[in-house]
Amino acid sequence: MMNIAVAQSGGPTCVINASLVGVFKESLKHPEIDAIFGSVNGIEGIIENHLVDLKSIILTNYDMELLRQTPSTVLGSCRYKLPDWREDEEVYKKIAATLKQRNIGAFLYIGGNDSMDTVNKLSEYFSQIGLDIKVIGIPKTIDNDLCITDHTPGFGSAAKYVATTMHEITRDSIVYSIPSVTIVEIMGRHAGWLTASSAVLHSMGETAPHLVYVPEAEFSIERFLTDVRQEMSKHKAVIIAVSEGIEVPEGVQSGVVDNFGHKYLSGIGKHLESTVRTEIGCKVRSIELNVMQRCSSHLGSKTDIDEAEEIGAAGIRCALSGETGKVLVFRRIEDVPYTVVIETADAGDVANQEKFLPKNYINSAGNNIRRFALNYFLPLIQGELDLIMDNGVPKHFAIHESVLK
Amino acid sequence: MMNIAVAQSGGPTCVINASLVGVFKESLKHPEIDAIFGSVNGIEGIIENHLVDLKSIILTNYDMELLRQTPSTVLGSCRYKLPDWREDEEVYKKIAATLKQRNIGAFLYIGGNDSMDTVNKLSEYFSQIGLDIKVIGIPKTIDNDLCITDHTPGFGSAAKYVATTMHEITRDSIVYSIPSVTIVEIMGRHAGWLTASSAVLHSMGETAPHLVYVPEAEFSIERFLTDVRQEMSKHKAVIIAVSEGIEVPEGVQSGVVDNFGHKYLSGIGKHLESTVRTEIGCKVRSIELNVMQRCSSHLGSKTDIDEAEEIGAAGIRCALSGETGKVLVFRRIEDVPYTVVIETADAGDVANQEKFLPKNYINSAGNNIRRFALNYFLPLIQGELDLIMDNGVPKHFAIHESVLK
Repeated sequence: MMNIAVAQSGGPTCVINASLVGVFKESLKHPEIDAIFGSVNGIEGIIENHLVDLKSIILTNYDMELLRQTPSTVLGSCRYKLPDWREDEEVYKKIAATLKQRNIGAFLYIGGNDSMDTVNKLSEYFSQIGLDIKVIGIPKTIDNDLCITDHTPGFGSAAKYVATTMHEITRDSIVYSIPSVTIVEIMGRHAGWLTASSAVLHSMGETAPHLVYVPEAEFSIERFLTDVRQEMSKHKAVIIAVSEGIEVPEGVQSGVVDNFGHKYLSGIGKHLESTVRTEIGCKVRSIELNVMQRCSSHLGSKTDIDEAEEIGAAGIRCALSGETGKVLVFRRIEDVPYTVVIETADAGDVANQEKFLPKNYINSAGNNIRRFALNYFLPLIQGELDLIMDNGVPKHFAIHESVLK
Repeated sequence: MMNIAVAQSGGPTCVINASLVGVFKESLKHPEIDAIFGSVNGIEGIIENHLVDLKSIILTNYDMELLRQTPSTVLGSCRYKLPDWREDEEVYKKIAATLKQRNIGAFLYIGGNDSMDTVNKLSEYFSQIGLDIKVIGIPKTIDNDLCITDHTPGFGSAAKYVATTMHEITRDSIVYSIPSVTIVEIMGRHAGWLTASSAVLHSMGETAPHLVYVPEAEFSIERFLTDVRQEMSKHKAVIIAVSEGIEVPEGVQSGVVDNFGHKYLSGIGKHLESTVRTEIGCKVRSIELNVMQRCSSHLGSKTDIDEAEEIGAAGIRCALSGETGKVLVFRRIEDVPYTVVIETADAGDVANQEKFLPKNYINSAGNNIRRFALNYFLPLIQGELDLIMDNGVPKHFAIHESVLK
């Protein structure tokens, strides 16, 4: 008989709670698992012994369904980077102490590649000190930039939001008789997956987005202006998708960095808007999709949400089978009919690396996505949930602030 | 036997096309109406005799349902202000010529208060020259600032989007352990209706938005900072709704004006963000909901969409009854059960005026919305459509660019 602990980390997505539901529901099926602890604010909750008993919080099937529809991390999150345990063991001792005190046999960490670094380091440390606690990573990130896995939970819902919103912005942009340019800035530090996903509109017969700029292609302002002028000769309203992470002149980025040293990017949309206004002089606007990309669960992809739950459940089975230091990943068998299997990879191979958009997804001009590449994106955005509504607004599952304090 | 013409004008909303469907469907029921012409780009299409035959474009019930779910104006839009016909009759002669040539007996104009000015001027002019063409206005605006009517089509869907997104942003904001402030900038030049609608979350037990600033209340940076500090003492993550139109120091507004001389506002969110960063020094971000507020038909309010269709249909009946220079309006009988009736008002009484949030909706501190006022907003955001999907993305009805050229 053992207990398990689960935590959520990194930037929110629409489906991290679905993975939590997967972990929770699968745990209930195994009589060898007793208490299911949730760690408040990611690994910070383990360090500070701040755990909550999930069985006293998630009570019914209705609670689980509501949690599946709730964006962001119900247990809170963190951006905490573990030091190398060979240099600084202090925090590792605290983690081990909490897990031993709570009789934890397996710790599941739902997060991005920084969290997979934590999974890797913790499992190494535990094996070094001979502590038999399994550490398993469940991937998530809207950026879709984790290695080895075909795609990451959270990406499909973000892509569905981006495509839908791009479609609606297209309708909004073409109403006036004068020529115009609309620039939509989409998340993605170094990888253009989410920006590229907006091109699924081409499969519906839309010509928009007419231009798609991703960080994986070389970018120059001169080429950009030529592209815009060319598209303006063909379309009254030109719609442009641009990744926040494309390489731009000095001074555009805000320069703020997060705890991991990632640059906090902003402003490329505004920058290109003012460039078009100055150089072309037409009506132009820029729109930042902002955090709505990662939290619009009212438009979650059912495929994504179901997969997030399944990969969470697979994490429990993986731990029970005796594995540790592993990350659950998807391997795609076929696009049509869409078929994936869940496998495991070493956390060390997933951590601290990024997966970029394949070069052959990008057209030769470096300003749009090739048609065949849409087969990658389309299965991930299929299906919708029956939303639970309250007073006309989608309802969320929330743990009272006082419990999380 | 006569033909009718219909046009759409002003800023897009989610339901202007539903009003077009109402006009179209009702016209089909009356044997005295023959062709139904759509004017391309609002009144500009009448001036330039650029009309399309809607019966050759909207063919089936499926087309009508799809059009009901399509945001923005399928016929294009304009921001065209008619001169006083006593000073400049030229354009009026062109309008009369088109309508006579096409044998139009009634012209229905779907738009905001500037469009109602057009309805008023045209009906006056036609009666002056003895031309028997009825001119009827169908209201729309996400701003909800039209006089006489209880509310305007388009507002309910925008309010549902704002409330839902504010709810999701709330989930996104509370995940980290450090204190933070999130500022959400919402549309509304002079009227705070849409910003105030975010407070419906209070009816679901949410404390967010913790502060709500509307143009109808006095605003000062000093009071704002005091408010924020006070809320930070109570909540880890403070969520603020702020109208784009609140009065701010010089230099924040971009100074660009549209054809009607309206100031094009932007930047209050960014301005307050940098004020909080400088003066309080905590984690802070601002989010502009931008055009998504007016075009997110994937989250349209069924109540709003159905009402928009009904008021369009009522416009046809009004014209057939022999009225002209009228605007269709809603009068609310009861909040619960929600009951409205459709009546008419003189276009001259609706045009060129704005309806503001009642002072008693705003709390005495001028920084939130009173609980009783939610009864006004709640009925307007109820219900959802069964969306027609295509490849995982809501499908839209569109007229081919070449037809609109």
